[in-house]
Amino acid sequence: MNVIIVGFGFIGKETVRALYKKMDIIKRLDEEFRIIGISDSKGYIYNEKGLNLEKLINIERLSDYMAYNESGSAEELIEKRDVDLMVEATPTNIKNGEPGLTFIRKALKRGIHVVTSNKGPLVVAFKELTTLAKMNNCQLLYEGTVAGALPVFSLVRKCLQGDKIRRIMGILNGTTNYILSKMYFEGTSFELALKEAQERGITERDPSYDVDGIDAACKIVILANALMNKDIRFEDVKRTGIRRITQEAVSLAKKANYAIKLIGVIDKRIEVAPKLVPINHPLCVHGTLNAIHIESDLAGRITLIGYGAGKETVSAIMNDIFTILKDLRKS
Amino acid sequence: MNVIIVGFGFIGKETVRALYKKMDIIKRLDEEFRIIGISDSKGYIYNEKGLNLEKLINIERLSDYMAYNESGSAEELIEKRDVDLMVEATPTNIKNGEPGLTFIRKALKRGIHVVTSNKGPLVVAFKELTTLAKMNNCQLLYEGTVAGALPVFSLVRKCLQGDKIRRIMGILNGTTNYILSKMYFEGTSFELALKEAQERGITERDPSYDVDGIDAACKIVILANALMNKDIRFEDVKRTGIRRITQEAVSLAKKANYAIKLIGVIDKRIEVAPKLVPINHPLCVHGTLNAIHIESDLAGRITLIGYGAGKETVSAIMNDIFTILKDLRKS
Repeated sequence: MNVIIVGFGFIGKETVRALYKKMDIIKRLDEEFRIIGISDSKGYIYNEKGLNLEKLINIERLSDYMAYNESGSAEELIEKRDVDLMVEATPTNIKNGEPGLTFIRKALKRGIHVVTSNKGPLVVAFKELTTLAKMNNCQLLYEGTVAGALPVFSLVRKCLQGDKIRRIMGILNGTTNYILSKMYFEGTSFELALKEAQERGITERDPSYDVDGIDAACKIVILANALMNKDIRFEDVKRTGIRRITQEAVSLAKKANYAIKLIGVIDKRIEVAPKLVPINHPLCVHGTLNAIHIESDLAGRITLIGYGAGKETVSAIMNDIFTILKDLRKS
Repeated sequence: MNVIIVGFGFIGKETVRALYKKMDIIKRLDEEFRIIGISDSKGYIYNEKGLNLEKLINIERLSDYMAYNESGSAEELIEKRDVDLMVEATPTNIKNGEPGLTFIRKALKRGIHVVTSNKGPLVVAFKELTTLAKMNNCQLLYEGTVAGALPVFSLVRKCLQGDKIRRIMGILNGTTNYILSKMYFEGTSFELALKEAQERGITERDPSYDVDGIDAACKIVILANALMNKDIRFEDVKRTGIRRITQEAVSLAKKANYAIKLIGVIDKRIEVAPKLVPINHPLCVHGTLNAIHIESDLAGRITLIGYGAGKETVSAIMNDIFTILKDLRKS
């Protein structure tokens, strides 16, 4: 299998690192596995015989690797012969999905399997892309797009195969959960908690993305379309952020054994809004943790808790890559 | 696919009910799917053309079904021609694994896929049975044996395929968790909490099985052997129950924001013992809930919470059946 990685930011680099670390296990599934190309926003590196991973994990910028094609684009890389799988890890843009959307479209049209951790393209064009994948007989996997390391799509598709999902509720944004936890445990104001989150570098550049529930709403769009047979867009999510949550409200809830959490819900409702959660409810996790609560006809209620962002997201990307490798072995 | 169900107690009946309810989806995977035989401890029913599920879900005892073979044994049923899959749901016996162990051995030797929710055979003979399955080129799946509806084996094998598991910790017994939660929230003594659990019918006949950590230790044996490459037996689990947990200890812990929980651990240690768990830790769930906390190299920490017993266990059995159905379709 010949792999290209599009995007060499934090996730792209961590993916290369994980592939290098796990190469022994991977080679047992596919002796011919290799990374043949990597692009960043300015150019790419390419070697049809496979790039040197040991060198790759020690460079900061892609241009530090030998034979960096300065004027090349990711699209050129996708057009190279014999590409079997693209890992797409470009920056998220939820307005138009670009540049990832163009790259994923192009790859799928060429019959290239795609693994992505980028919400943008799926929020903008979920139906188009999944249809395109089916038509071209290839896989489009996106475990890393929702709740980082939490394997929610695989859980539903591979571990609850007999179940019908009735409701999904989740804490899907670590930054707002950090802010609300700080208000809950330390009695700080929203403004102060936000400022600290910003100083610790756990907010997006535009805090609105987190605190107004935009990020969580994007995840709700993907979850609803992928796991609950909906066909919704970002605009269909009723959305209320946490800006107007006061310290008084948090304290009052706390006295009654509740915490205020920013919860995404998919059932008859499709919404993201602050809600009172009983402190003993499995969903009531704190700090930057994410949690997803699934209600289904057979299993009843299952909650999955873990890291929703950061390098742990690579676990989801690796699982998607292994899924494709194993499916190819079977066929 | 021709299926037999061995054991027609609570789980056997709920499995028939779930198969009946999901027959539409199942038939889409395998038009020829049918249940051809069911046994209980005294006899069996059999029809090579398929049993009538609508009748089956309305009877209390198997002998109420037409043509009940009163003198027949489950072993005879396993020997019938054309059996492809056995769902084994006989009562658990952790001393010698019987009668399930004999049935599973026999089925695997005949190349019949096995799905079981019965801990006994796997605690007694994990290595023997998994080797037997491999040798006979058939699947032995046992998702329902540990933590009921929680799909921990599938989660690790299908959703964390790139991860190396470093530690598993869990609340694996709902009865002791109910007792400890009652002591924590209502300030009752161990004795009173146990009595109430017994009155509510959530303990085993012999309370020692729960409160001395025997049940949890059995689950640790299966988890360690299945997911962490161990080769251990029941005797290898260091085990301390909760009989000596006093109300005073629980209150003291509570004041310091901890709860006392019966925790199974697999790392360098292999043990079941009461431990202090911070009340904000994802593992700190209450009532009869189970929780499993998995530490791995890529995903970091993932916690899975849900119902560890009861009819929800059928979700695990159904998922195993779907796994076998889908694998057969691919091959």
